[in-house]
Amino acid sequence: MVSYDEFSKLELRVGKILSVEPHPNADRLYCLKVDLGGDVRQLVAGIRPAYPEPAFLVGRLVAVVANLEPATIRGVASQGMILAADDGQTIAILSPERAVAPGAKIR
Amino acid sequence: MVSYDEFSKLELRVGKILSVEPHPNADRLYCLKVDLGGDVRQLVAGIRPAYPEPAFLVGRLVAVVANLEPATIRGVASQGMILAADDGQTIAILSPERAVAPGAKIR
Repeated sequence: MVSYDEFSKLELRVGKILSVEPHPNADRLYCLKVDLGGDVRQLVAGIRPAYPEPAFLVGRLVAVVANLEPATIRGVASQGMILAADDGQTIAILSPERAVAPGAKIR
Repeated sequence: MVSYDEFSKLELRVGKILSVEPHPNADRLYCLKVDLGGDVRQLVAGIRPAYPEPAFLVGRLVAVVANLEPATIRGVASQGMILAADDGQTIAILSPERAVAPGAKIR
C-alpha cells in the first residue's frame, strides 16, 4: 500500500511525442523527443516491438513520469518514462481520452 | 526526483469500468465499480463534471492506482484512484491506446 502523500511525490504529466528514432544500440528501444508543455525531454522507451511504425506515435499524447531520476539506457540519456500497459500479450501506451495541453498534470 | 524503486512501489493497473453512480453526498463525485482483472473495486472519483454521462464511461478501460491506501470520501469507501489529466481547462481520463486485459500492469 502507498499513501496519497507517497503517490503525490510522483510527477505524472501528459507529453506530446515530437519525434521517434530507433535506438542506435538496441533493437527493442526507441529514442523519443516528448514535449511536456515547453519542456522537451529525450526519453528511451521499450515500446518499439509493440509500435513498429514511428509515424503512428508522432503527435500522440502519452502519460509520462516527469520526475524520474535521469538514466542512461544503452548509452542514451533518458529523462523520464512513458507509461504503457502490458497484459502479457499486448502492450499499449496510455493516452488521454480527449485532447489536453502537453504538460497537463495527471493525478 | 523519484528513483525507479520509489516509482515501482506504486501499483498501476488497467481497470474496466463496470458501473457508474452519482455519489449520494457530493455533486461532483461518482462512485464507480471497476474490474482490475477479477478484483472488483469500488472507487470514488471527481470526474463527474467532465463526464456528465455515466453511460459514456461504462465499459471503458482506465488507469488505476491499485495499491493506494483505502479512503472514505464523503462517507463512501474508495479502494483506489482513477488517473485523469487536467490542463486547467479540460479533464481527460487515461485509456490504453488499444485493448488490453483488465488488470494489465502499467509501468
